[in-house]
Amino acid sequence: MNATLFVCTTCRAGEPAVDGQPVPGARLYAALAAEPAPEGLTITPVECLSACTNGCAVALSAPGCWSYVYGRLGEGDVPDILAGAAAYAATPDGLVPWRERPQIFRKQSLARIPPQER
Amino acid sequence: MNATLFVCTTCRAGEPAVDGQPVPGARLYAALAAEPAPEGLTITPVECLSACTNGCAVALSAPGCWSYVYGRLGEGDVPDILAGAAAYAATPDGLVPWRERPQIFRKQSLARIPPQER
Repeated sequence: MNATLFVCTTCRAGEPAVDGQPVPGARLYAALAAEPAPEGLTITPVECLSACTNGCAVALSAPGCWSYVYGRLGEGDVPDILAGAAAYAATPDGLVPWRERPQIFRKQSLARIPPQER
Repeated sequence: MNATLFVCTTCRAGEPAVDGQPVPGARLYAALAAEPAPEGLTITPVECLSACTNGCAVALSAPGCWSYVYGRLGEGDVPDILAGAAAYAATPDGLVPWRERPQIFRKQSLARIPPQER
């Protein structure tokens, strides 16, 4: 399916902003975009996922599927984020079996939203 | 537009479950469903919005619009939830001007997700 991994590029993850330095969200996006995207997945930057107290944050969504938001992420989580996103993109409904989700997706879910059209 | 207010009916809001008593999420849904639904809004129960540490939780979504998840809600918030949901349902894109959002929506956002199809 055509799934999207949205990456908040404005997340500061509690760090003070430093002039000329990319914020943690921008660094996370750059690190994700530098890897080959899993099949069926588009990685898209977005300004603010309104999860500021739990940044860095990403969201997974796809037409007709459950959407998920995960938080408290960093560059070290890139392999797990991509593995979890690949598993999501391979489902017909966005529901990845619990045991097949990376631990960061099991433990750091901020919210999920049902499909918009059913 | 056709907007949906999803209400998590399994939220315990940190309370221990009591046999035979509805959990806080079920009570919130009942209180919302007892009021007239704003124009263009459907109120739908859902099992778990994966925001368990911030329950009770609700989500607002509509086709082609930004989706929002709000948490730490209770029955006393019903008028504000319905006012905020009515404002959301009246927009073409889900983006309600900041000052027109009820305070619970300004202060208790857990996450938002971009439109699924653009």
